[in-house]
Order: sequence, then C-alpha cells, then structure tokens
Amino acid sequence: MKGNIPLMQTVVELNDLQASRAALAEPVGLVPTMGFLHEGHLSLVRAAREQCASVVVSIFVNPTQFGPNEDLAAYPRDLPRDFALLEKEGVDLVWAPTPEVMYPAGYQTWVTVKELTGHLEGALRPGHFQGVTTVVAKLFNATRPHKAFFGQKDAQQVAVIRQMTRDLSYPIAIQVCPIVREADGLAMSSRNIYLNPQERKAAVVLFRSLTTASQLYEQGQREVAPIKAAMEEIFHQEPLARVQYISFADAQTLAEVTELDRPSLVSMAVYVGKTRLIDNQILG
Amino acid sequence: MKGNIPLMQTVVELNDLQASRAALAEPVGLVPTMGFLHEGHLSLVRAAREQCASVVVSIFVNPTQFGPNEDLAAYPRDLPRDFALLEKEGVDLVWAPTPEVMYPAGYQTWVTVKELTGHLEGALRPGHFQGVTTVVAKLFNATRPHKAFFGQKDAQQVAVIRQMTRDLSYPIAIQVCPIVREADGLAMSSRNIYLNPQERKAAVVLFRSLTTASQLYEQGQREVAPIKAAMEEIFHQEPLARVQYISFADAQTLAEVTELDRPSLVSMAVYVGKTRLIDNQILG
Repeated sequence: MKGNIPLMQTVVELNDLQASRAALAEPVGLVPTMGFLHEGHLSLVRAAREQCASVVVSIFVNPTQFGPNEDLAAYPRDLPRDFALLEKEGVDLVWAPTPEVMYPAGYQTWVTVKELTGHLEGALRPGHFQGVTTVVAKLFNATRPHKAFFGQKDAQQVAVIRQMTRDLSYPIAIQVCPIVREADGLAMSSRNIYLNPQERKAAVVLFRSLTTASQLYEQGQREVAPIKAAMEEIFHQEPLARVQYISFADAQTLAEVTELDRPSLVSMAVYVGKTRLIDNQILG
Repeated sequence: MKGNIPLMQTVVELNDLQASRAALAEPVGLVPTMGFLHEGHLSLVRAAREQCASVVVSIFVNPTQFGPNEDLAAYPRDLPRDFALLEKEGVDLVWAPTPEVMYPAGYQTWVTVKELTGHLEGALRPGHFQGVTTVVAKLFNATRPHKAFFGQKDAQQVAVIRQMTRDLSYPIAIQVCPIVREADGLAMSSRNIYLNPQERKAAVVLFRSLTTASQLYEQGQREVAPIKAAMEEIFHQEPLARVQYISFADAQTLAEVTELDRPSLVSMAVYVGKTRLIDNQILG
C-alpha cells in the first residue's frame, strides 16, 4: 500500500539515533512526547510534518520530571500503538530511549531555569521543571532540530522551554500549538485515562470555568477577583473536583496579576478524584 | 600574499554567528578561549586545523565563572592581537560576543555538573564550574561543532566538560591537548602576565614539584604521603610561593587517593605573590 514511501525508523540507542539523524533531510522538526499519544500530540506531529522536511518524535517517560509521590510507575504506556499512530502521520524517525540510555550510571548534569520555575507548577512540583529542561536539552542536543513543537496545554512548560532555548543560545524555533479538546471541552491529556466515568464527566468543569473567565473578560471585566470568584463558584458546584490553584499571571513573566491589563495566563490545577488535571487559557 | 584564501571572519552577534556557521564546511572544530592567546591556545587551534574542515574560535571572558573576589576586571584582554594570531593560523571564524550577547537582561538558565565539581577547584571556587559549563553549553549550541578542543592545563575543567558532554548527549568529540610550557617549565597561562620578574622566576617551582613527583613515581613509589612531602619541601624553599592545595586524585572521579594504584591526577593551586597559578600531571 505504501509504495516507495520509506518505513518509519525507530531507534533506542544514542548511536543509532545519530546515524539516522545524519541521513535526514533538513530542516528537521522535533516533537518531544512521553508517549501514550492522543490527538493533542498528533496535532504537533502534523504541524511538524507541514513545516519541516523531516519529523523526529521522541517517546520517553522522563523519570526526572516526576516527584517521589507522583505517578511515574502508573503513567500510561503503549509503544506499539504509538508507533502505529506515528507511522500513519508520515513520521521519519522515532527515538524511544530507555531510562538507562538517557541517565546512565554516574549521570550528574542538570539544566535549570530559575525565576520562571518559581511559580505555579514549578512551586507545587519541586524539581519538575529541572527534569523537563534537562531532558529537553538532551533531546535538542541529540536530535539537533531546527524547530521543536510543544503544546499550549503545558503553558508554563512552554514558557520555561522558550526561556531555556533563548538563554542557552539554541538555534531552534519553538513552535507552540493550541490545546486540543474533547467534544465536551476537556483538554486532551494522557492522564485522562485515570478518570472513571463519573470523574470523566465531572472533569469538564475545568473548561467550563475557563469559558466563564473568557466571557467575563469579553464583557469588559478586567479585575481578577470577580472572575476568580465566578470560577470558584463553578468548582463549588462540582463535588468531585478540588481546586489546587487558579492563577492569573503575566503571560511573559508568570508573576501573579490582579488586573488583566496585559496578556495574561489563566491557569489551574484541579484534582478530579485522585487525578490531577491542568488547563489554561490566554486572556488578551 | 594570501591569494584566494578567504579572510577570517569575526562576528559578535548571535545572528551573524548563525549565518557564518551555516556556510562553514564540516566537520567543524571549536576552540573556546577567554582570549589573550598564548602558545597553549594556539596548539589547540592547530590541532583543530589539522582535524577539521573548518575552525571556529570563541573569545569571551566569561563573567559567570569568576567569583566576586576574583580577577574578572583585571583579566588581560587584547582582541586585535588575538585576531592577528588566529588569522595566521588559518582560522575560519572568530566569535567574540559581548557579555550582553551571552547574558541578556532576564537571563536565568544554568547548566550544573554535580559530583565532579565538588572537588579541587570546584570546592575552592564556588560557582566557577557552573559558569564554565553554562558558557560551554551555550558555545556548543550556538556553534554546533563536531569536535571541541580543550587544554589539559585545566584538568578538572576537562573532566567536567567531558561529563557534561556525555550527560547532555552532545554529539561532540572532546579533544584534550597537552599542557604547553615555557622553556623553564612554567605552564603557559594568560594569568602569567600578572607575575613580576622575581615572581616569574619563582613560578617554576610548580613544575619542579611535579617533576619530583614523576621521578618518585618512576622509581616505584606508590604511596601519596612521601611524594606529597617531597613536593611540599620544594615549596618550602621558595618564599614567594604559598601552596593552596596539592591533590592526588583518581583521574576519573577526582576523588582523593592515598595510593597511586590507578591513573591519578596530581594537581595544585599555588599563590606566587598575589597570582594564583594551577598546574597538573597524570601519573600512571
């Protein structure tokens, strides 16, 4: 069926990656993932396919970005399914390293972004962003992409990676793609699989609260306090949801704001049952 | 006189570097320096010239690797002389960024190698190696070399950069060139210019102590204590010298050793007058 289209290559070891990378047509687009792919990931792959001569996808559940009490062991994995999805999208090369390839014995080097990681997810998940920036630097170095594609779903991650890329003088364009949502508005996430049917239904409350925030903003409201109160009221009506934070922050610096007089990031972390979900939206 | 040989290019800004880098024949060799070049640097340039299709030299007195009480302001600089020396060696591209190019306002990203920097220079100069690894990562990212050339003079720096290169998955070969010495044995260093004539004469004591260590090792001595005592005795006879440390360490891990039963690094930091000098040698 595929005629002369070359098969997608999949590699694990660094040496094999280097050999395959050297043969790729440029420019190269990289889509870093932790696998268990959904339409959000695939939207990144499609953007890379459109903009680049070659597309590399990495699949690695990165242990260093999980805290000791987080869901590393439970994080969903399905490599065969991921490979099949990526092959359909015309991906050229998939790198699926093991933890031993990425962090061999004696590993001791860390990439840290300071101020930006002191807020929001960084404040609540100590060490998380050090794990993220370290692994992304490794992915950048090993695959040498011209463009790298990330989802707006992880809004702070995007800001942190932009900062790292600029600070460390990477000649890589960071492309950010919009959040992809289910029909009812729930942001796609590999972690949605943790939700039972009732929780899945309740989880739409995050999107509903963001929609309310947008509506108030569109109506001219620029004070954070009444918008936040309206969002909290929506969560109060959903017994399965427990808000960890609702933040209104300067979209550049991620410093909290009380007035929406500049582009602002509304973001939140909410437990639905035992599953921690995040979502966000830019206002202005 | 140069016929059709293209002139060496010198750039300051990152955009200009990227444009010039893209036009270079590969493989590319990088020689990172802080300028005020001596024969030690030039030996690195010549090795790069022999092994690579193109040679890039960076000149940057990196403020982040100097401590608050160190010699950043006094560090010798002579860009016109450096450019002339490098042009004679057939260098293709010199990148001499300003501090503002390397560390623009809002800069906040750091690359840190942990265990290896806890010893020796890293223990005595807090933050020094974080400055080194951060700037070298930036140089690697911006210039994308296939090989990078460093001098054995900075033995711990070499070990730390090797570790960083491996840990961060850089596809870059680290080439280490031997220490280049003056006729009397003093290791070449840009900081030797700080020495007055008496101190310059006294400074040979570092090399004499290393020679003594080698001789004892060649004679079969494998205990550190008597070798170290013989070295200290040599320093006691030189009133202008004040030893900060003499170390015998595992050449791989830099952990201190008491017996020379594996490749070992003898290294030292010595004040001669107010000038801090370092020197080293591998035994075994």
